[in-house]
Amino acid sequence: MSSSLVLYSYWRSSAAFRVRIALNLKGLRYETRAVHLLQNGGEQHAPDYVALNPQELIPALVDGDKVITQSMTIVEYLDETHPTPALLPADAASRARVRALTQVVACDIHPLGNLRVLQRIGMQFGADDEQKGVWMRHWIAAGFQALETMLANSKDTGRYCHGDTPSMADLCLVPQVYNARRWKMSLDEYPTILRIDAACAELDAFHQAMPEQQPDAPK
Amino acid sequence: MSSSLVLYSYWRSSAAFRVRIALNLKGLRYETRAVHLLQNGGEQHAPDYVALNPQELIPALVDGDKVITQSMTIVEYLDETHPTPALLPADAASRARVRALTQVVACDIHPLGNLRVLQRIGMQFGADDEQKGVWMRHWIAAGFQALETMLANSKDTGRYCHGDTPSMADLCLVPQVYNARRWKMSLDEYPTILRIDAACAELDAFHQAMPEQQPDAPK
Repeated sequence: MSSSLVLYSYWRSSAAFRVRIALNLKGLRYETRAVHLLQNGGEQHAPDYVALNPQELIPALVDGDKVITQSMTIVEYLDETHPTPALLPADAASRARVRALTQVVACDIHPLGNLRVLQRIGMQFGADDEQKGVWMRHWIAAGFQALETMLANSKDTGRYCHGDTPSMADLCLVPQVYNARRWKMSLDEYPTILRIDAACAELDAFHQAMPEQQPDAPK
Repeated sequence: MSSSLVLYSYWRSSAAFRVRIALNLKGLRYETRAVHLLQNGGEQHAPDYVALNPQELIPALVDGDKVITQSMTIVEYLDETHPTPALLPADAASRARVRALTQVVACDIHPLGNLRVLQRIGMQFGADDEQKGVWMRHWIAAGFQALETMLANSKDTGRYCHGDTPSMADLCLVPQVYNARRWKMSLDEYPTILRIDAACAELDAFHQAMPEQQPDAPK
């Protein structure tokens, strides 16, 4: 008996994008409930949503009577409750490699370029769009330089970030590459990242999770 | 046969503090190698360290021939390789609750107040110490408001963040509370956080991990 899955999502959110890829890789059906981050004063701040996620951030997954927040928590939860196909390798050292690749994006790139952070540097420091772009590209470059080294120098890197099946690392990487393109970053210095991104793009699970494919994307 | 553990640490790093607590909770002996983030142009940028961690961030754990980076990856690795006492509960929903509490700190508070971010807002926006304090307190408050709600409203909260044994959530929370005090934040609005922090402070594993207890702390 499978319970119904509901994903509170925003088409262009990197974090929701990760969870959509995980759901697709697992072959799980889910209902999308769109939370528009820019309309109505930010629908993530509406009382109904705040009751689900006091952080007022996207995404949240509802699985029957359970509410799971934090994108990488959701992905680990899906991997534990629906183990096949696995999104982490079997041995502890390889799992650590994948989680570390994941957290370069999820802890050290993405949180610095969230909508709320861009709003904050505008409000506190008067940053305009150009300065916001400089800020974004600075942090993405710092993370991608490390990731490129970690990927290019390891024999464990395969068609994807870890071997020849997609893992948690890929579902973090691809939304961050999408985001980098949105900020018009040159990615020439990151050939391994680009190669893996292109390999992922050939998979339906990634393609169907793209922002433009979402029901709440602008027409 | 246990391999030797070496932790590359800085006494005041929140992320290293988390790993020290995990090592202590597991009763694991380890050698500390101090990496001074502010001396010699930042020892985390020295070639020997960059070879271990291309992110040039603290901490890194060396376990025999393996190098593990990213604090929460290290903690998950230690929990998988040394399962007792467990730092995550047994069932998937509870594990998700603990990981989500963890990631409020590890993804949404701490990365915004890292040394490199404070250096960056100084360089890019001319932020002085007072403005850096405003920035820090803003993000800690945003995260602590959510955490306080998540902890105070759940029957799963016990003496610690999840039940009556310390978990990954506690080893993230305590260093963040330490950091908040350093930035002279009023914590009166967060009584549940303060209660759990005080409970943790009674445990040797937390006390021995405190910045002031480290070999590289200033005398």
